[in-house]
Amino acid sequence: MNDRSISPDTTDILYGIASRRSFLKSAAAIAVAGGTVAACSDSSAQKTAATARNTSGGTTAPHPSTPATPVSAVSTADQMDAMHEAGIKAFPARTEGKGNQLFAPKMDRGVKVFELTAERVQWETEPGKKVEAWAYNGQVPGPQIRVKEADRVRVILHNKLSESTCIHFHGLELPIEMDGVPFITQPPVKPGQSFTYEFTVPAGNQGSHMYHSHHNAAKQVGLGLLGAFIVEPKRPRKVEQVDVDYVMILNDGMHGYTVNGKGFPATEPIKAKLGQKVRIRFMNEGMMIHPMHLHGMHMTVIDKDGWAQPAPWKCDTLNVAPGERWDVVVNCNKPGVWAFHCHILPHAESDHGMFGMVTALIVEA
Amino acid sequence: MNDRSISPDTTDILYGIASRRSFLKSAAAIAVAGGTVAACSDSSAQKTAATARNTSGGTTAPHPSTPATPVSAVSTADQMDAMHEAGIKAFPARTEGKGNQLFAPKMDRGVKVFELTAERVQWETEPGKKVEAWAYNGQVPGPQIRVKEADRVRVILHNKLSESTCIHFHGLELPIEMDGVPFITQPPVKPGQSFTYEFTVPAGNQGSHMYHSHHNAAKQVGLGLLGAFIVEPKRPRKVEQVDVDYVMILNDGMHGYTVNGKGFPATEPIKAKLGQKVRIRFMNEGMMIHPMHLHGMHMTVIDKDGWAQPAPWKCDTLNVAPGERWDVVVNCNKPGVWAFHCHILPHAESDHGMFGMVTALIVEA
Amino acid sequence: MNDRSISPDTTDILYGIASRRSFLKSAAAIAVAGGTVAACSDSSAQKTAATARNTSGGTTAPHPSTPATPVSAVSTADQMDAMHEAGIKAFPARTEGKGNQLFAPKMDRGVKVFELTAERVQWETEPGKKVEAWAYNGQVPGPQIRVKEADRVRVILHNKLSESTCIHFHGLELPIEMDGVPFITQPPVKPGQSFTYEFTVPAGNQGSHMYHSHHNAAKQVGLGLLGAFIVEPKRPRKVEQVDVDYVMILNDGMHGYTVNGKGFPATEPIKAKLGQKVRIRFMNEGMMIHPMHLHGMHMTVIDKDGWAQPAPWKCDTLNVAPGERWDVVVNCNKPGVWAFHCHILPHAESDHGMFGMVTALIVEA
Repeated sequence: MNDRSISPDTTDILYGIASRRSFLKSAAAIAVAGGTVAACSDSSAQKTAATARNTSGGTTAPHPSTPATPVSAVSTADQMDAMHEAGIKAFPARTEGKGNQLFAPKMDRGVKVFELTAERVQWETEPGKKVEAWAYNGQVPGPQIRVKEADRVRVILHNKLSESTCIHFHGLELPIEMDGVPFITQPPVKPGQSFTYEFTVPAGNQGSHMYHSHHNAAKQVGLGLLGAFIVEPKRPRKVEQVDVDYVMILNDGMHGYTVNGKGFPATEPIKAKLGQKVRIRFMNEGMMIHPMHLHGMHMTVIDKDGWAQPAPWKCDTLNVAPGERWDVVVNCNKPGVWAFHCHILPHAESDHGMFGMVTALIVEA
Repeated sequence: MNDRSISPDTTDILYGIASRRSFLKSAAAIAVAGGTVAACSDSSAQKTAATARNTSGGTTAPHPSTPATPVSAVSTADQMDAMHEAGIKAFPARTEGKGNQLFAPKMDRGVKVFELTAERVQWETEPGKKVEAWAYNGQVPGPQIRVKEADRVRVILHNKLSESTCIHFHGLELPIEMDGVPFITQPPVKPGQSFTYEFTVPAGNQGSHMYHSHHNAAKQVGLGLLGAFIVEPKRPRKVEQVDVDYVMILNDGMHGYTVNGKGFPATEPIKAKLGQKVRIRFMNEGMMIHPMHLHGMHMTVIDKDGWAQPAPWKCDTLNVAPGERWDVVVNCNKPGVWAFHCHILPHAESDHGMFGMVTALIVEA
Repeated sequence: MNDRSISPDTTDILYGIASRRSFLKSAAAIAVAGGTVAACSDSSAQKTAATARNTSGGTTAPHPSTPATPVSAVSTADQMDAMHEAGIKAFPARTEGKGNQLFAPKMDRGVKVFELTAERVQWETEPGKKVEAWAYNGQVPGPQIRVKEADRVRVILHNKLSESTCIHFHGLELPIEMDGVPFITQPPVKPGQSFTYEFTVPAGNQGSHMYHSHHNAAKQVGLGLLGAFIVEPKRPRKVEQVDVDYVMILNDGMHGYTVNGKGFPATEPIKAKLGQKVRIRFMNEGMMIHPMHLHGMHMTVIDKDGWAQPAPWKCDTLNVAPGERWDVVVNCNKPGVWAFHCHILPHAESDHGMFGMVTALIVEA
């Protein structure tokens, strides 16, 4: 169900569904000439045909109403553009470490056992940028826990940090003893200690949830002690029968603006084939809203915090607030590399190019 | 369908549906006397009758339980009030330039052609406050593009800026070549260059969309390279059959807190006659949420990002996040000058009076 | 219908539905030993049974894979934990003054009369922290006004402040003269003056509304000139037939992060008995969003700004923006002390422990 590996040909896809690489090369040549560039697209099959026409009679002739631009402006623009282009070309950039990896449980007489060690690590958020992270099993976000409704689950937490910690299962409706709030529902788990959470996932409690520290949490969650806790339903609804199931955890803390622990261009693109359906599970573990905008195709919102909305509804920009989870389905009916980013623009772009909360949905023809 | 011109009698309307001007004058006199003021209203036709009564026996007698207030407090209060009053009296204040003007296309063999020139201008956001803007056709927001479902559209962009730029049609589901993301879907449009976008508006893609720069966008959109792109449906729903159709673009960037490029008191009131229906198309091109609050009448939310909500729902305060569009309909069943503002109060008022994201819905009897 | 008094046994409840106090004591002993702690819960009646098991063979044995932790880390952690524990143990802490108290009207020939005096007071937001407040009748939030649809209401405002003021009834659909916007709908109410609002609550305008200053409001509302204005329906819907009806006013202004005018641990817990239904009326009078997260049980959203949503929907984290009201119902089906807090974590916790926008829903078995 998951399809998140990056194939070697991603770069080719990025620079063109068809032969965009040569297009870009010639376009660049045209650009230097200060002329008019026209893009061409005709996909009549989509009833959204777009055809290119050059409005000034020739692809390289300056537009009549456009005065000559001083060379200095062009060269300053070129320098800025080069930085922007370098970022795009680097995408998806390799960095050390990958968070949110599917966590295969150990089975113990019918119980799914997940062992989490909280410890301090160095985490590379984008190429060359290493930050201190407090991580579960060395991952930011922590490993992705996926279980089913009514599963018996055991989570063993080992604390190798210099502070006490604990785990709250955000969205799971558990008995109070399993709620993970120090001094209210349990003692804090001290440095060097371990703690075992064990519970049956309630019937009806399916969907996109989270686990994270609930002790000194502004710091501990900010540094990375968080992860996805997905509960698959016993009987998936028709709307849930998708080809790609993607968890997208948003954060904005001490690691900068990140999607699954990485900033652009080190973010991971979501990949699908034309005609496939992609479910995206937005989760906000930060301190700010992030209105996520997908280009080219709308999102159909199906769930909020794991609960079905009374009726699905459509949008292209979904405001995700801290602590919220929203599940959407995208019908990938258009090939292309579709930008997918937070629409608070300073979270996504500077004059040095795109960064932070930017990724792409790549639909391969 | 649009009714956004400001008639010469706006000031009269502002100061009273009936004879409020004289009321205010006498009220001011009462105020100086430090007495009790009572307002009177009885509109039994509305079943919301409000009648005035003076609770201390006379309109000018101080309330028994109210101690004498030192003159200094009153005079400080008077000074503050004078600033507040001056702002209100100036509304709607004249400024140079008007954004979001309806853009009449040129027709070219069935294609609606819109020519946009991006260039640096001076923009007056409120009386006497001029800022640098990067504008399409000298307007902030840029001219309002209005087309119909299935229309063939050509947008020709001329770049007279010192930086490269491009246009993303936010909310339109176009082929990837028309998506407007430099180095992914097209080369950047360099200073002095032009670029032609051409596409057929997809069937079903009606509603409130936007166009804006997608290059160095935190800066370029912040400086004004943005506008509304409205797609009218072939068959409007009954709920869309309104008397006034108003686009309200919110921004909070380098120009301050603005509604359609202006800050109060230079914002434009929305005007309707009693019994009319007004559609408001909220669009947020800024970096912050703006929960817009309408006084006196509720809003019925019909669309999100151009897509119909499963069922209309009502509110009086609508949280609009960056990149989002929300369409609401107001049934103007109460005469008056109804304040309409962002409810993040520091976006709307200071101790010098109202400013920024404040306008009014004026319902004329 | 309201049950918001704090019984003397709250502390007992806080530390355990059963015999948690002894549990915590022994747990603390275990903690010092640096060993493994396991929590135990088995509530088969809930079908969410959670049983404890010690995964390393003994409750006090260090986990094999956990290296010895230096004493210094433990002692630093202990110091931090002690601060956290002290905060929790103090909850609910006594402070001087209580806002949002139910306001019993005086009756005057069928009119419900509420007399509000705006004046400067000292307000204790948490033990020992006194701030300047501008309050109605000495309360922050002001006294809770509760009336019924179609009631005739008179609100008499006395201004004992050093600035002019006024009242806007946010969410009520009143004639323009009662709208409370100085220089548009009435003159400002000067220091020493009084003003009488009188109106009939419109039919259909039931729900959770607010009253607050609409003059120099960023400051005046920030300092406390605000309160709840609840309109009870003539014919309550079935979904409204609840056991506890709780108003929760969020703020983030000059008094810090507060819930009903107090910061944790001086916030008031919501109390219910197992099986009861609690309605929570969220109101945001601040400048920031507050996504409120309830542990352990979901919330069913029924109303927005006093208007019924087309269909109820479920969540555990509800984003409340400034000026918005959201009504939810919680079915209290799990005993415990359930944390209830803003999920923007820096609004709720620092390394000194929980503070600000934190309270609890206490469900007594």
